Amino acid sequence: MTRVPTESVIDLLAMLAYGEVLAFDRMAVDARLAPDLRRRALLSEAAGAEIAHYRRLVDRLEELGTDPEQAMAPFAGALEAYHDLTRPRDWPEAVVKAYVGDRLTDDFVRTVAGVLGRRDRELVSEVVQEGRYQRLAADELRALTADEQARSRLSMWARRLVGEAMAQAMRIATERPALTALVVAVNGDANGDQSAVQLLLRRLAQAHTQRMSEVGLNS
Amino acid sequence: MTRVPTESVIDLLAMLAYGEVLAFDRMAVDARLAPDLRRRALLSEAAGAEIAHYRRLVDRLEELGTDPEQAMAPFAGALEAYHDLTRPRDWPEAVVKAYVGDRLTDDFVRTVAGVLGRRDRELVSEVVQEGRYQRLAADELRALTADEQARSRLSMWARRLVGEAMAQAMRIATERPALTALVVAVNGDANGDQSAVQLLLRRLAQAHTQRMSEVGLNS
Repeated sequence: MTRVPTESVIDLLAMLAYGEVLAFDRMAVDARLAPDLRRRALLSEAAGAEIAHYRRLVDRLEELGTDPEQAMAPFAGALEAYHDLTRPRDWPEAVVKAYVGDRLTDDFVRTVAGVLGRRDRELVSEVVQEGRYQRLAADELRALTADEQARSRLSMWARRLVGEAMAQAMRIATERPALTALVVAVNGDANGDQSAVQLLLRRLAQAHTQRMSEVGLNS
Repeated sequence: MTRVPTESVIDLLAMLAYGEVLAFDRMAVDARLAPDLRRRALLSEAAGAEIAHYRRLVDRLEELGTDPEQAMAPFAGALEAYHDLTRPRDWPEAVVKAYVGDRLTDDFVRTVAGVLGRRDRELVSEVVQEGRYQRLAADELRALTADEQARSRLSMWARRLVGEAMAQAMRIATERPALTALVVAVNGDANGDQSAVQLLLRRLAQAHTQRMSEVGLNS
């Protein structure tokens, strides 16, 4: 028994699924920026985890009786725009991007998971759970931000990533009322859809500030 | 207890490991050639499987007390040359390449696995075992070769792939006596190293002919 309409659940899973296939693609290419094979493998393996998650989400979409490709299509524009606007130029930027993207998605999913039925709640939680790669990325980030100049540059890059992510999130919120309904359900907010979305984005930004300081970046 | 020198085992695992990291990288990029998202995910997932295998091989190399990066370095030239010389131009070529590369590696590993100790025999067998992706690739190939003109073009492409693979295998055999020793051990051949290598390559070519006809390609 789900507490939100199936349409909203499908939108959520489809957005996450398309996000995974794009993350796989971009991280696989960004891995080439690594200064050595150990680090290259690190990001490649993180990419491999994303595509494994994709499969689980798509299997669930099929189970819900929807065509995954059709369900994902509405999210292609916003998610591709995010990646096109945030191409890392070097290895530190690639690591920050992988870390920020994963953490933002995790925070968002944790926020909305509560209104999902047990089955989907467990699925999305497993898909975003903090894994070995995220810990390794955090370690790598702490090393990369040991130097003050690097920290300043990468902090700015992280802020830009969050800015672009928030802009695309707003676009999706406008275009996908079914997904916005899910955010509204989380807040139990009577003040309307847009304020619920604003509240969610504010919370995500706060969580992000915390995340950044953990790895030595200022936000 | 291994029946071949550790040096040979390290060479084998290192060659396979570097092959996996390159296969991951190239398949991830080739996936962009897919005509739709379902097929793109197919090759992306196959790439994900390769990088998971890489991790297992590297863990074992570390267990054997060697530096994985140093162990892999001697194979970079030949394996990268293979990929540089065989860039797929479209989706059918990408599928043929994924299939041929995986099958050739599998046949090679099956041939030499017998002289390894139990632990490494099991590891390499698991790493190359025919999985879901290979069956899907075989199905996709059969569909792609239904048309006579496509079959002719892709058969030629498959022959080129095998030719380049054999050329690089000869290069590795010349450069890596420890690995050649493993091939000699397989044959129990008293006629010398080069004839053992020739025999192995002949066998691989025969197995390949069989493989190709199974998916509608002529060799």
